[in-house]
Amino acid sequence: MNYSTLYKNTLLNDILPFWEEYSIDWEHGGYFTCLNTQGQVYDTDKFIWLQARQAWTFSMLYNNVEKNPKWLDIAKNGIDFLKRFAMDSEGQFYFSVTQTGKPLVKAYNIFSDCFAAMAFSQFAIATNDESLKTLAKTVYYNILNRINNPKGIYEKQTDIRPLIGFSLPMILSNLVLELEGILLDDEIEKTIDFSINQVMNVFLDESSGLIFENVMPDGSHHDSFNGRLLNPGHGIEAMWFMIDIGVRRKDQVLIQKATDTILTILDYSWDKKYGGIFYFMDVKGHPPQQLEWDQKLWWVHLETLVALAKSYEHTQSKMVLSWYNKVHDYTWQHFSDPENGEWFGYLNRRGEVLLPLKGGKWKGCFHVPRAMYQCWKSFENIEAKKLKI
Amino acid sequence: MNYSTLYKNTLLNDILPFWEEYSIDWEHGGYFTCLNTQGQVYDTDKFIWLQARQAWTFSMLYNNVEKNPKWLDIAKNGIDFLKRFAMDSEGQFYFSVTQTGKPLVKAYNIFSDCFAAMAFSQFAIATNDESLKTLAKTVYYNILNRINNPKGIYEKQTDIRPLIGFSLPMILSNLVLELEGILLDDEIEKTIDFSINQVMNVFLDESSGLIFENVMPDGSHHDSFNGRLLNPGHGIEAMWFMIDIGVRRKDQVLIQKATDTILTILDYSWDKKYGGIFYFMDVKGHPPQQLEWDQKLWWVHLETLVALAKSYEHTQSKMVLSWYNKVHDYTWQHFSDPENGEWFGYLNRRGEVLLPLKGGKWKGCFHVPRAMYQCWKSFENIEAKKLKI
Repeated sequence: MNYSTLYKNTLLNDILPFWEEYSIDWEHGGYFTCLNTQGQVYDTDKFIWLQARQAWTFSMLYNNVEKNPKWLDIAKNGIDFLKRFAMDSEGQFYFSVTQTGKPLVKAYNIFSDCFAAMAFSQFAIATNDESLKTLAKTVYYNILNRINNPKGIYEKQTDIRPLIGFSLPMILSNLVLELEGILLDDEIEKTIDFSINQVMNVFLDESSGLIFENVMPDGSHHDSFNGRLLNPGHGIEAMWFMIDIGVRRKDQVLIQKATDTILTILDYSWDKKYGGIFYFMDVKGHPPQQLEWDQKLWWVHLETLVALAKSYEHTQSKMVLSWYNKVHDYTWQHFSDPENGEWFGYLNRRGEVLLPLKGGKWKGCFHVPRAMYQCWKSFENIEAKKLKI
Repeated sequence: MNYSTLYKNTLLNDILPFWEEYSIDWEHGGYFTCLNTQGQVYDTDKFIWLQARQAWTFSMLYNNVEKNPKWLDIAKNGIDFLKRFAMDSEGQFYFSVTQTGKPLVKAYNIFSDCFAAMAFSQFAIATNDESLKTLAKTVYYNILNRINNPKGIYEKQTDIRPLIGFSLPMILSNLVLELEGILLDDEIEKTIDFSINQVMNVFLDESSGLIFENVMPDGSHHDSFNGRLLNPGHGIEAMWFMIDIGVRRKDQVLIQKATDTILTILDYSWDKKYGGIFYFMDVKGHPPQQLEWDQKLWWVHLETLVALAKSYEHTQSKMVLSWYNKVHDYTWQHFSDPENGEWFGYLNRRGEVLLPLKGGKWKGCFHVPRAMYQCWKSFENIEAKKLKI
């Protein structure tokens, strides 16, 4: 089976049926995401990141793969839940709510808002719902307004060491393309310019070729736990956002620089002993604070496959292809679960299943189906070009 | 070598020399706690929990082992740093400061205050410093005032699910004994009564014999990630605080109940496959949120040795002795590092070193020397009674 067929079939015949069968809470709205190996619900709390991401996934597939009314119903079940229960009185999004929508953890985290904006936008495109487009735009501008103080009153850091984080500029570079057709073109281009500069100039370190998770506002480094931190999966995921932008802008230099960065990060963070990509590293080789540093996470590996597939599609680099095949073998061997469906999320350093779950507080219906879709489409193009695989 | 001598020698000839040699920041005050395998400083930030705990350790040893002026100097170096740099304008203690004492992470965490009160009290006793006794008392009452809302404005949970945490009642039962001679006897007895009730009635579950990390205020359980969470090391550590209280009150029933609880938790949380005690568990066997759940931590094992030694001293139970020897073998084999001194803190499930450090953000000069001292004293009594070992 060629890769495009593998990804397409897995998406349509394995991943989506799993979430369709086990995750929908038709009674109270939204989705269950805490699903064990077999798909049984083991916790009913609803984490807004994952509610929004699943609504986004089904909306996006409806828009791009097939006008399947079941997918639209599933997306609507999440969108309605989000609109009704996810926002506090200031229009900021909770981190989590109960099964019936009562707020549990307050809006300390701006990423709930980012994923809500993505979900609203895709669903508004699917349904041509003008008021939802307006809501998506409102949420987007709320995010921009909070960008310099995303944690608000929950910020525990003082101003003494004003490190800035990579997550927000990274996610903006993807979010803004999701709002195409909803935002004005000028706004989109302005945010793209901002993101490229932040990602490729401020956070990407010229000399090492690595992306730092936290830097000083001028891009300089700080010799502290947060300042030394690398999150290889984050860096690599951001590079496929950059490739998407490079394709949009026909900017081959950006695509090449993103490719170089993917390869540098992979070389640095690949576990030479047991295989797989480390979750966190300290750039000076000191012990990181994160006790989970050596674990192998599903999203890190799937985002890497997407990044390598896109890179290969647009550069035809042999080195990229060689890495693709290496990461492909590790990832499909260790994370997938053909017996029960969907993929495991968390492996220990040796690649053994650490948590027997298909979904939880942070893993939902998002990285797996998105990567399946992205790789399917990239390999369709790669195969159409008759590139060596 | 008998156990009392092993613990005494390790404390005096291995553990203390390591911290004396590598950790003291004579220039800026306080201590370095981020020390690699060999004792080299790899990060200079100062975490207030650990600053206070190290000042406490050297003060406590000065008070109880030997009037060693070097120990008093080392303690003073931390106490002066704490007094000068650790308190914010409301008298609450920061979580961390820079090497030179500039605030980094605000007072979101009441445990900084708990350890500061312990340190001030022990040092005040060592030096008979009346104003420091008053400060220790002030900090203690500040803690009591915050007990129903310990995170203050940083609390992200809503009131929908009012779970209460085990840490605070647990630590109070130890802290209050540390303030003997500073607080009035009535205050001490009142807080002991409160702690015993919280620990042994509210958090200890009668039917399973396990201690829950979070319960509803009436002690009932909640079927959610936090409500299902077990932290075996916490439960076992609290049991030796209860045994100390039982000894003080000549309450053999309390000592026996604490002993039963230690054995129940150990039986539940011992890793039958690789040995050692799990860090976190879910009482229903679901995947916990904590990715580090299966790791083996130094403090969990050392506190267990203290608990078992004290329990054996006061119950002479064969089952306790058998568990003591089992945990002793695992702990001394896996955590200690006779080649470089001090103990490793973090092992993976298989008992291999996960982080090559002797100190970090959470590990300082506290659990190892305190456990060495406590086990030394317990085994002196056990050996004096000529009990079987």
